[in-house]
Parts: sequence; C-alpha cells; structure tokens
Amino acid sequence: MRHILVIGIGAGNPEHMTIQAINALNRADVLFIPTKGAKKAELAEVRREICGRYVTRSGSRTVEFAVPVRRTEGRSYAGSVDEWHASIAATYERLLEGELGEDQTGAFLVWGDPMLYDSTIRIIERVRARGRVSFEFEVIPGITSLQALCASHRIPLNLVGKPLEITTGRRLAESFPHRTETAVVMLDGEQAFQHIEDSEAEIYWGAYLGTPDEIVISGRLAEVKDEILKTRAAVRERMGWIMDIYLLRKGADFDD
Amino acid sequence: MRHILVIGIGAGNPEHMTIQAINALNRADVLFIPTKGAKKAELAEVRREICGRYVTRSGSRTVEFAVPVRRTEGRSYAGSVDEWHASIAATYERLLEGELGEDQTGAFLVWGDPMLYDSTIRIIERVRARGRVSFEFEVIPGITSLQALCASHRIPLNLVGKPLEITTGRRLAESFPHRTETAVVMLDGEQAFQHIEDSEAEIYWGAYLGTPDEIVISGRLAEVKDEILKTRAAVRERMGWIMDIYLLRKGADFDD
Ligand SMILES: C[S@@+](CC[C@H](N)C(=O)[O-])C[C@H]1O[C@@H](n2cnc3c(N)ncnc32)[C@H](O)[C@@H]1O
Ligand SMILES: C[S@@+](CC[C@H](N)C(=O)[O-])C[C@H]1O[C@@H](n2cnc3c(N)ncnc32)[C@H](O)[C@@H]1O
Repeated sequence: MRHILVIGIGAGNPEHMTIQAINALNRADVLFIPTKGAKKAELAEVRREICGRYVTRSGSRTVEFAVPVRRTEGRSYAGSVDEWHASIAATYERLLEGELGEDQTGAFLVWGDPMLYDSTIRIIERVRARGRVSFEFEVIPGITSLQALCASHRIPLNLVGKPLEITTGRRLAESFPHRTETAVVMLDGEQAFQHIEDSEAEIYWGAYLGTPDEIVISGRLAEVKDEILKTRAAVRERMGWIMDIYLLRKGADFDD
Repeated sequence: MRHILVIGIGAGNPEHMTIQAINALNRADVLFIPTKGAKKAELAEVRREICGRYVTRSGSRTVEFAVPVRRTEGRSYAGSVDEWHASIAATYERLLEGELGEDQTGAFLVWGDPMLYDSTIRIIERVRARGRVSFEFEVIPGITSLQALCASHRIPLNLVGKPLEITTGRRLAESFPHRTETAVVMLDGEQAFQHIEDSEAEIYWGAYLGTPDEIVISGRLAEVKDEILKTRAAVRERMGWIMDIYLLRKGADFDD
C-alpha cells in the first residue's frame, strides 16, 4: 500500500521543524514540493532549504509540481474553491500514480500546520474517494503562523479563561468586537481591520513571520492602523507578495 | 541582564520539539521545571525526558520547583486565578533572583505552546511589573494539544473559509452550535459536550495525546457521547488524572 505523509513544516523559519517532522521527511521515498509560480519563489525556497538541511536519508527524490490556479471569474466563492480542489486532487492522483511505487512513501510538505486554513487533508480525502489509487495517510503537525505571531509579540492568544475566534478577512465583520474579544485574522486580502471602529481595540500584526523579512507592529488599532496599511503596501510592493496575519483584542484578563 | 526563554515543548510527544526549541534549551544556563505533585508526575517526566534527550550543552542545571496550588474556596473564578498568578509570580521572582546569575539565561519549559491557555507569559509580565528583578524574555512556540488532536484524527480545524472558536468547558454553551460551526474545547472538567443536543453535531475527542496512552474517539455526538463519557471516566480512574480536548463540528465545507 502507498503511504502518504502530510507534514507541517512551520510558517517560515526552518527551525520551526519538529523532530517528528524531520523523522517523517526521512521516511519518504518521494518529497512532493509545490512551486507556486515566480512571485512566491521564496516559499518553495524555504521547502528546498528544509529538505537540504534535514533530509539525511539517501536515495529519496524530490518532485516539484505546479499547483493549479484558482479561477474566480463567474463563480461563487464556494464553487470556485470546490473546482480548484477538484483540480488539485487530479494533480495529486497523477503524482501518486506516476511518481510513487506501490509500496513507497510520499510526503507533502505543508506550510504551517496542515489543519489550519489548508486543504491538503481535504484534497487527499478527495483522491481517496475517487478510488483510483489506494493509500494510507498520516498527518504531522507543524508550527502555524498564528503561533509565530504570538511568539514574536510575546503575547498569550486568549484572555484568562475566555474564548477566541480564528477567522478570515471576509468574515471578520461578523465577529469582532461584538461576538468575541479576541479574533485572529488570516487570509485577509482586504485589510478588514481598517473598517473596525472601536477605540479600545488593540492589534498585533505580523508579516513574513519567521523569515528574515519578518515585520511586526502592535498598538491601539486607531493609532497604528495607518502605519500598518502603509507598511503593508510598501513591503508588498517591494517583495511582490505578502503573507500577513493579525490578532485583534478588546477587553482584559479578569474582567468577567 | 538576565534572559528568560519561554519554550513550548509540545503536548506530550517529545518529538513535538522543534529545532528552535532544542536550540533554545541549549542556550539556557538553568532549566526551570515545574513539578505538579504526584498525580501528574508523568508531565514532569516528559519534561525530564526532553532535557535528557535534547540538552547537549554541558554545564546547564535543572531546577525543579513546585507550582503553587490554586485556591477556589470563597473566591470568584477571576479572583481565584488572579491570586494564583500572583503567587506563581512570587515563586518565579525567587527563582530568578536565587538561581540565575545577572548575566545568565533561564528557560521555562511550557506544555504545548505558551500562547494557548497558559499563563507563563502573563506571569513573567507580572514579575517584570513588580520591578525587583530586571530581565529580557523571548517566546518559542510549540506544538499545541489542538494540533495533536487534529493530526491524530487527520482532520482540518476549520471548514473551508469559515471561522472557528476555541473555548473552555465553562463557556461552551455560549458558543456551539448557535454561534459557531466549529468549536474546540479545552480545560473541560465537566464534559460540557454531554449537554449539547444537536443531531448533526460531530465530535473528535482525544486524551493524553502524543503520549503512549493516547486515546481518540470520533463520530456523531449523539452516537458516541456515552462511549466518550465511559472511556474518559475509566481511564481517568486508572491513571489518576486526565488531559483531554475535543472538537465539535456542525455544517460542511462549501455550504455557504
Ligand atoms: C492558506 S493559509 C495557510 C496557513 C498555514 N497552514 C498555517 O498554519 O499558518 C495562508 C495564510 O496564513 C497566514 N500566514 C502563513 N504564513 C505566514 C507568515 N509566515 N507570516 C504571516 N502570515 C502568515 C496568512 O494569513 C496567510 O494568508
Ligand atoms: C492549561 S491548558 C494548556 C494547553 C497547552 N498550552 C497547549 O498548547 O495545548 C491544559 C489543557 O490543554 C489540553 N491538553 C493539553 N495537553 C493535552 C494532551 N496531551 N491531550 C489532550 N489534551 C491536552 C486539555 O484540554 C487541558 O485541559
């Protein structure tokens, strides 16, 4: 039976790699590395660096593959993502059939942790459901961008005994500050924080966390909002792409 | 200046340790290890195993200390936690003054990740605010029990593009299923899931994750509820203590 390892590689710093992930890398005959096009060459570079640094077993191969691009035109969000996943599933199926012998082990290196806003697990379940290649799979956790954010700001994620939400830019307005005192926002292409009017809200923002380009800014939202918008636009322009995440907080420990 | 490293050590499996955490361990002159009393001897054991396995620098010392116990009688939840933190802060202050030379580095080994339902960061900020010892500190992320849960069940944390909540047993009733489709529950001494009546809800439960005693159960809540309650009671009785966490889900990808 083919065996698949879905390995979380951390969110930018090669030293986020766990011993469990390193051992998993060294169980793989084939390492599958997504290359996401020129702009995000740095991300493929981190994966290559991880393989170069931690793969000690001889005889394993690296297979780079292009991840299909998501089409959005004339599609609903859900429809667009569904179609995109189907096309990635077809790619994975081809990789498994074409690159992996029947008793071999293949590894997918996933940014951060595969559980968090990532669809590798879902897509592997789709490939399985299609029923053309049979395999077993295993998931290895990795440090997420959320953890890198809190560590760099040296803050707890939650207030004492209180809940928190993790959400996307698209959905932020539904939740903060009326539904939750702590919201972590990922996948935000529209800087949703700029529309939040709350004089008590604080923001902890970070971009390119864990990499040599890491930037963090924090403070009262109303006071640092513009600085974040400006910095983000400038670094995005310079780098050609950006990954950023932030935590919004209102309220305090011990106030309920 | 004294330097403090707050190091996430993962949630039970010594192989959750990251390279960053291992390097941090080896920067410390003194390793502070909380011992939590006989029942949770296993937890102190994991920390000792981690030091034994990964500390390669010679000349560092281990200092074990007893964590003050939280008193609840006649106190509000917030009051009780506040008093407890103050007393841990006094303990930390003594450790820093008594065990760490002015230019030395001390490490606190924190279960999981220091950002998640843990007060080490908060307590270190308290010690700093007291102003008697001066120091710098740094936080190193670690694999959380939430990640160990998702990895063992091989599930994504979130539905596609949707938000999720992380909460405690005490607060679960406020959130699931009416406020969120995905809730992760930690610190639940009362098995709050048993009061949720929702025929569509699914649960992914795990105890002692990452350790040789790991148990996971999943399924439709209404169908597996009793099995989880029974299993939990039995293993808790046998081990003398328990750590468990679960994810509740309702809804599906692509339904909005
Ligand atoms: C598709 S999600 C993948 C998340 C990943 N699985 C994780 O565990 O962090 C991509 C989003 O993660 C966040 N992100 C990932 N890496 C980041 C980094 N190094 N710095 C800042 N944000 C990051 C950004 O919000 C980005 O839009
Ligand atoms: C005080 S919190 C600390 C959480 C920790 N900082 C983390 O990152 O997972 C303790 C709670 O974490 C969860 N927990 C921690 N380790 C666990 C494990 N190995 N298995 C199951 N639950 C665990 C339980 O819900 C427990 O009540």
